[in-house]
Amino acid sequence: MPEPLRLQGISASAGYAEGPLFNLDGIASPYAGKATAADEKAALETAIGIATARLTALIETADSDAAGILEFQVAMLEDDALSSPAFAAIAAGQPADAAWRQALDAEIGGYESSEQHYFRARAADIRDIRDQVLRALTADGDIQAPAGAIFYGEDIAPTRFLETDWSGGGGIALKAGSTASHVAMLARSRGVPMVVGLGVVGPGVVGLGHSSANPAGTALLDAEHGGIVLSPSRTEIDAFRQSSLSFAARRDRAGTFLARPALTKAGTAVRVQVNIADPSDVDGIDIATCDGVGLMRTEFLFGKTLPDEETQYRCYRKVLEWAGEKPVTIRTVDAGGDKPVPGFTVEESNPFLGLRGIRLSLARPEVFRVQIRALLRAAIHGSLKVMFPMIAVVEEYRQAAVMFAEERAALDVRGIPHKMPPLGIMVEVPSVAIMPEAFTEAAFFSIGSNDLAQYVMAAARDNATVAHLNSVRHPAVLRLIGSVMAFGRERGIPVSLCGDAGGDPASIPSLLEAGLRDLSVAPAQLAMAKAAIADVSI
Amino acid sequence: MPEPLRLQGISASAGYAEGPLFNLDGIASPYAGKATAADEKAALETAIGIATARLTALIETADSDAAGILEFQVAMLEDDALSSPAFAAIAAGQPADAAWRQALDAEIGGYESSEQHYFRARAADIRDIRDQVLRALTADGDIQAPAGAIFYGEDIAPTRFLETDWSGGGGIALKAGSTASHVAMLARSRGVPMVVGLGVVGPGVVGLGHSSANPAGTALLDAEHGGIVLSPSRTEIDAFRQSSLSFAARRDRAGTFLARPALTKAGTAVRVQVNIADPSDVDGIDIATCDGVGLMRTEFLFGKTLPDEETQYRCYRKVLEWAGEKPVTIRTVDAGGDKPVPGFTVEESNPFLGLRGIRLSLARPEVFRVQIRALLRAAIHGSLKVMFPMIAVVEEYRQAAVMFAEERAALDVRGIPHKMPPLGIMVEVPSVAIMPEAFTEAAFFSIGSNDLAQYVMAAARDNATVAHLNSVRHPAVLRLIGSVMAFGRERGIPVSLCGDAGGDPASIPSLLEAGLRDLSVAPAQLAMAKAAIADVSI
Repeated sequence: MPEPLRLQGISASAGYAEGPLFNLDGIASPYAGKATAADEKAALETAIGIATARLTALIETADSDAAGILEFQVAMLEDDALSSPAFAAIAAGQPADAAWRQALDAEIGGYESSEQHYFRARAADIRDIRDQVLRALTADGDIQAPAGAIFYGEDIAPTRFLETDWSGGGGIALKAGSTASHVAMLARSRGVPMVVGLGVVGPGVVGLGHSSANPAGTALLDAEHGGIVLSPSRTEIDAFRQSSLSFAARRDRAGTFLARPALTKAGTAVRVQVNIADPSDVDGIDIATCDGVGLMRTEFLFGKTLPDEETQYRCYRKVLEWAGEKPVTIRTVDAGGDKPVPGFTVEESNPFLGLRGIRLSLARPEVFRVQIRALLRAAIHGSLKVMFPMIAVVEEYRQAAVMFAEERAALDVRGIPHKMPPLGIMVEVPSVAIMPEAFTEAAFFSIGSNDLAQYVMAAARDNATVAHLNSVRHPAVLRLIGSVMAFGRERGIPVSLCGDAGGDPASIPSLLEAGLRDLSVAPAQLAMAKAAIADVSI
Repeated sequence: MPEPLRLQGISASAGYAEGPLFNLDGIASPYAGKATAADEKAALETAIGIATARLTALIETADSDAAGILEFQVAMLEDDALSSPAFAAIAAGQPADAAWRQALDAEIGGYESSEQHYFRARAADIRDIRDQVLRALTADGDIQAPAGAIFYGEDIAPTRFLETDWSGGGGIALKAGSTASHVAMLARSRGVPMVVGLGVVGPGVVGLGHSSANPAGTALLDAEHGGIVLSPSRTEIDAFRQSSLSFAARRDRAGTFLARPALTKAGTAVRVQVNIADPSDVDGIDIATCDGVGLMRTEFLFGKTLPDEETQYRCYRKVLEWAGEKPVTIRTVDAGGDKPVPGFTVEESNPFLGLRGIRLSLARPEVFRVQIRALLRAAIHGSLKVMFPMIAVVEEYRQAAVMFAEERAALDVRGIPHKMPPLGIMVEVPSVAIMPEAFTEAAFFSIGSNDLAQYVMAAARDNATVAHLNSVRHPAVLRLIGSVMAFGRERGIPVSLCGDAGGDPASIPSLLEAGLRDLSVAPAQLAMAKAAIADVSI
């Protein structure tokens, strides 16, 4: 009987899973060589076809973010420039698997050595393509994970996540990874338990991160608290099942809260709005279940090319019309930081402390003015509010407000219908939270708890080695939030919060205690957030 | 008569220079091809010899930092692996200059595409080697800048700085560059006026950064305020000379303050200590002119290999013995951030918000304990204080203090002489400044104004595009400093400040107003700091 082994990481998506471990890193299918070069060529063609078909099928069921990645991968697979070196190597006598691997590795190397963060990030997608085809090449097809398996390894490819049937349970336990990764976002929105950073142990955290775990047998994944137990004892299994049942009960109970307005135990009303990242996000939300959109991101528009005014206008209008009379707060583009945009953002050694958010918009007025015009025109279709990200000094707010006034005057002259929305600011740079009285010109404040916490604690929110420091529940962060709330009450400035903490049941009591009565959360967290609010006796 | 052109950047080293522009980017010496491959080979050998001799001569006069770079460059030049591809190309019929350039560019490309920040940074050094040899290859030797010239271009190589005779005036005006670069540090310590970021204009800053300046004629470099005027008018020249004389007078006057204790106009005493980065820094300082060492950095020890206990002990002891009865505050290693150490720090997407300072020391206790033992042993040789960088939560202080106690006990058992120094913390992560009451276990606080400002303003201190936001004089930063000072007074905890702001005459009035009476400054700033203190009426 092997000793139980406990690994501690960070929760990326809460939940529990019990099942066999499936080793993500150990997939090495044997490839059966063919008799002739012509056969090798045919085998590779078939494998590329299988991989393409598989990816195309995934696009059907994927949301917009995932579909974007998959479409990029299909486009790459269909590009002869990618496969021709492999076919040339086959013609020269190499077997199909080695030829393909070599050709793709060269391509991946090129992406990895790019100076552009954007292209380096694409290397993971091409690695994914490489493996998709290699898997399709093996005679016996794919090594399927058993149902309900816990995927364990360095990292997991988005396609692997998307093609797995999670209806029978299962989860993800990664040695590296990040809570901000694409798969982590998918896992949260689909309710798949996921833990990252199991191979990284920060100071003060007890764990065996660097030990080589035996990946056989049943494992217990506690993605509520960020841990995994390999080779668990009977007692551990029993305790785990108790916690898992209790979590499921809490989640089920939460469902009953979804349709009702959020009230604390003492009957205090709390507004709960939603954060959306793409206009299509609202398709799955019943507007009756929330108090509006507290944060509509606009980075999705800045994907491959800079978006034109008409495209932006249509996107904003769609969400405003969906929300009806309820408010929609649109944030001007917050590019930079961990959201690079080719041709717009710049390469920096510390992008979180660089030219991002409003700083970038003010530095590129020709791009910003297009967004401003689209917002002014969309404003007539609902209850629009606009806010600026990364405000650090009031001059930035003033410059942006002047540009709104100028574009409004220009639309007036041209006789184009428009409306001036209230202009507010994100409170995420500590300077604003420390001196809110310098920003009373803004119509409202929206606390960005993710960024505020990372600056106050000097701990990047996408870095597993300092994740133990990055928490909105740290007393210094809560003290700043509390003082902003008190200032807002005193001066009649509405203050809401739109970071991840607003949807986190563990953080909600502290936030309400700090004075917040207006939270904006991910759509998937709406029910749990309302349920957590109902448990607070304020 | 061309129109005057004003460019605004950031001051990297205060001072004034008037002189002809010397275009750094336009150096393209024509190379006279030789008759035979044997002659080409000889020409390249000679040129490498000249460049090596030139670099070796520079090492003689360079300080330890600069010498390290130059020694690396000489070692590279003497390495056959670097030059053999060039000689091979010459044998194949290429001229020496093209062969050398091609071979070095390939090498530079390899460094630039490295995943390791450390190696990417080395690319600049190899580019420097490439150009040194190319310059030595031209028949007429080097294109010398005229005496008193203002070097203007994208960036400047450390060797170019070191081989220039600055005694006749002159200065540096860079389109890119950084106030934290190696040349910027050298310029400050030698009093050479320098401005960076002339090609980058942040929001709110008026300038013509992207205009193509005509690099001919006389220019006026005002590195006190960070500007340069090309083709100045008569009136501008007159006004400039006035400012320059006033600056020189202030600097001369400052010299008379050096030997005296620092007193404000109202007679308030201010302690002024020095920051040092290397034990050899104290060789040029008269201990009578300062109140001790407020910050001794220990990153210099962590250069190529991790330092052993004996090496560290000797370095610490040297400085303690030099200071006599005056205090020496040694900071435990603050690696990470912009100070990568191969084999110790990790590659991160936002190193300023990552595993650095005490976080890294606690994560690598086997390295930290070596430094702790060296400090405990050195403590018997003077008045040592030890402080921890990047403290964010009190648990970090406690863990470090426990390790000091454990190592002390171990030294006790082994009968090795030692002493427990007072243990303090840097106040640079905002969480500490916001909640100082959580850190009363520390014996003293030392405010790290550089990092504190960059976190409070979310603006990296080495990024020219956000330099307008990164200032300790921002009211929110001063408010935090003031509240830490008030807390320290109330609870009897000594508070000093050891960031660059402490030595900046423009910041000193605000810092004294915020309550500071204990500053630690760069040795080169000692006189100016004392003079600025004498002007404050507190």
